[in-house]
Amino acid sequence: MRVSVIGGSTVTDAQYRQAREVGTLLAERGHDVVCGGLTGVMEAACRGAREAGGHTVGILPGEHTAAANDYVETAIATGLGNARNVLVVMNGAAVVAVDGGTGTLSELGHALDMGRPVAGLGTHRIDGETGEHIEHVETPADAVDYVESAGQ
Amino acid sequence: MRVSVIGGSTVTDAQYRQAREVGTLLAERGHDVVCGGLTGVMEAACRGAREAGGHTVGILPGEHTAAANDYVETAIATGLGNARNVLVVMNGAAVVAVDGGTGTLSELGHALDMGRPVAGLGTHRIDGETGEHIEHVETPADAVDYVESAGQ
Amino acid sequence: MRVSVIGGSTVTDAQYRQAREVGTLLAERGHDVVCGGLTGVMEAACRGAREAGGHTVGILPGEHTAAANDYVETAIATGLGNARNVLVVMNGAAVVAVDGGTGTLSELGHALDMGRPVAGLGTHRIDGETGEHIEHVETPADAVDYVESAGQ
Amino acid sequence: MRVSVIGGSTVTDAQYRQAREVGTLLAERGHDVVCGGLTGVMEAACRGAREAGGHTVGILPGEHTAAANDYVETAIATGLGNARNVLVVMNGAAVVAVDGGTGTLSELGHALDMGRPVAGLGTHRIDGETGEHIEHVETPADAVDYVESAGQ
Repeated sequence: MRVSVIGGSTVTDAQYRQAREVGTLLAERGHDVVCGGLTGVMEAACRGAREAGGHTVGILPGEHTAAANDYVETAIATGLGNARNVLVVMNGAAVVAVDGGTGTLSELGHALDMGRPVAGLGTHRIDGETGEHIEHVETPADAVDYVESAGQ
Repeated sequence: MRVSVIGGSTVTDAQYRQAREVGTLLAERGHDVVCGGLTGVMEAACRGAREAGGHTVGILPGEHTAAANDYVETAIATGLGNARNVLVVMNGAAVVAVDGGTGTLSELGHALDMGRPVAGLGTHRIDGETGEHIEHVETPADAVDYVESAGQ
Repeated sequence: MRVSVIGGSTVTDAQYRQAREVGTLLAERGHDVVCGGLTGVMEAACRGAREAGGHTVGILPGEHTAAANDYVETAIATGLGNARNVLVVMNGAAVVAVDGGTGTLSELGHALDMGRPVAGLGTHRIDGETGEHIEHVETPADAVDYVESAGQ
Repeated sequence: MRVSVIGGSTVTDAQYRQAREVGTLLAERGHDVVCGGLTGVMEAACRGAREAGGHTVGILPGEHTAAANDYVETAIATGLGNARNVLVVMNGAAVVAVDGGTGTLSELGHALDMGRPVAGLGTHRIDGETGEHIEHVETPADAVDYVESAGQ
């Protein structure tokens, strides 16, 4: 299946390693990675997936595919700005969120709105009923296990 | 200024009254209401605003303006589905969030991403740095005071 | 009803006068004007409509409502770039096209795709079955007569 | 490079064969095909490309990738309806148009608006300066030759 990996464009080394491992594990288990195509978590997840021979799709906010990071195999330009966030999560059967700021928060909302299973690695904790639908996990392997069990 | 009022399409009577009062107060102080154009918080805010002589804009997910609630003065059809959420918050200089589910969560993310001041009335509490940018208040008057002080 | 007025952002004086008269006639007969919110035909149509006491909506490609011309009453920012063109024609029950270049051509396609009646004043002539659905007229009054007779 | 192939979802056998040959020739010369992902010209172009070992991307109007034709290798769901048309031409460095109705007309407008070279095989003829930018050709080989010479 395709899994959307979302998270911040600016990350710590530890977060980069986590996102890269998520990408690697997804590819090793036969899944494709969809992301927003830029830096940080997006680059790390694509990099990990490509290094393991997987496929990667980057759905970009701008009009030019040249903005994609070096590990995006299929870059999709949209020119939609922030409205492209909904496309990022729409194109995965499940979502892994690594860290993340406000853009990631919007993607979490869209993902839950579309009923996508979401695994979170150090991502936003949201109280109440909506927040319960995010499965907070400790490791990349836990995240991939979860989306495999819950994704369609 | 224009203020985006966001929140659930299904609400309790108490939430409906709160959103309606937000709309009334905004209109009384000379502000216009922007919302998603549908039911629940969206309808209540438009209703309150129109009853106080204010202007209301509803930005709809579907292709037909007929889906707008009765209190939308200017209905904008988009046909964009969930991607219209970003337009709802883009078109206000500030945001008031009343309750809300997953769609509202996406709008909170988009609003914070665009630097909009956000007042929350019983809306999602998000931990960490991102969540600190939401001003949680107790009453509609507090919400309108906040967006007036913080909005551009 | 609402009528979308489309056409080039750069126009001759004669085209500007035509578009302005279209706006005036629409407003005098009780219709609202929807347009892309920028210069040229868009500005002229809004200007004519506002001078006659009508309502005008401008649906902008960018993220900031400040880009709207001075005669737009309700400005809607989209941040969608060219993808906003489909919203311009979606929000009118009929379309008047004055002159126009490539952007207007895309709007003609979208308008016909949604079954909107289209009156053309010096706009693109397209051969074949698709082109037959554009009613080419000689004067602003003819254009408004046509959209009144054919619009819903 | 990537080439967008646009055209009607309902086609004659002759048009289907033409679009399929366009896809085959593009793939044989090392190019990828981007299209709207549905039936008719879109299916034929993807089929021809895949049969020749090429890559194909389908950018869909709806929210579900399952709507893609069998020859789309990478399906992108958008949920944008007609607004996805601009994405179809944005993601090719050049465009081949085969026949086509109103949707194709909108894509021609968007393609010319973004300065994409366009080869037309039995597609809309548009008078005036805008129409001059479409290179009307007689055969699939002519179309591929043209976009190779003019594309970036």
